[in-house]
Amino acid sequence: MVDENQMKNVLQAYIDGFNHGDAEAIIALYADDATVEDPVGKPPMQGKPAIAKFYRNSIKTGAKLALAAPIRASQGQEAGMAFDVRLEMPQGPALIRVIDVMRFDSEGRIASMRAFWGLSDMQMGG
Amino acid sequence: MVDENQMKNVLQAYIDGFNHGDAEAIIALYADDATVEDPVGKPPMQGKPAIAKFYRNSIKTGAKLALAAPIRASQGQEAGMAFDVRLEMPQGPALIRVIDVMRFDSEGRIASMRAFWGLSDMQMGG
Repeated sequence: MVDENQMKNVLQAYIDGFNHGDAEAIIALYADDATVEDPVGKPPMQGKPAIAKFYRNSIKTGAKLALAAPIRASQGQEAGMAFDVRLEMPQGPALIRVIDVMRFDSEGRIASMRAFWGLSDMQMGG
Repeated sequence: MVDENQMKNVLQAYIDGFNHGDAEAIIALYADDATVEDPVGKPPMQGKPAIAKFYRNSIKTGAKLALAAPIRASQGQEAGMAFDVRLEMPQGPALIRVIDVMRFDSEGRIASMRAFWGLSDMQMGG
């Protein structure tokens, strides 16, 4: 069992990992057999190697994350947060508005991450 | 298939339903066999009668909802939003910080709602 504050700390560490450009810190938050569905609606990635590749590439974009509201917990083993991503795309600076929801395993590692963002949540010019 | 803007319109109508004190408008957004898990971690309610009872009771609390950030879509049939709930509890005014994620059926009705909020997301004094 993980408590609400433990879950919130992991989500904050996820934000901090991006803002420090530290892909390995983010990858370390995940369980070995975790899944990442980013965005929701696309086939999920599964397992540490696929997840590690995804975050190493994400960090290379220079993406920085800013919470749009305080992190939310739940009364189960899940938590969520709304944030804004600013990154450099080949076309220039961009902003993506995202909600991530994460499910935890019994050891407090992320077992599942799902990222809600659509094409209507992206804008160029950041 | 529902598109991103259709989903966002339903989530906005959900917010508006609360703020107009109109439980029936909220209930009408749901599919007949929908599930509502509020909060995440508690057993879901299933079906229109259970969902109708839940919203009629919720409206009686005087709960008002304010988006904390723009509504997010996804690249599937799901969308999410972060918002703040202000309501009267027996102990006085209270604030609850929530993220709702909703899955849609092919006709654009809500098939599943999951509300992320924990005890750490509530505060008295609103």
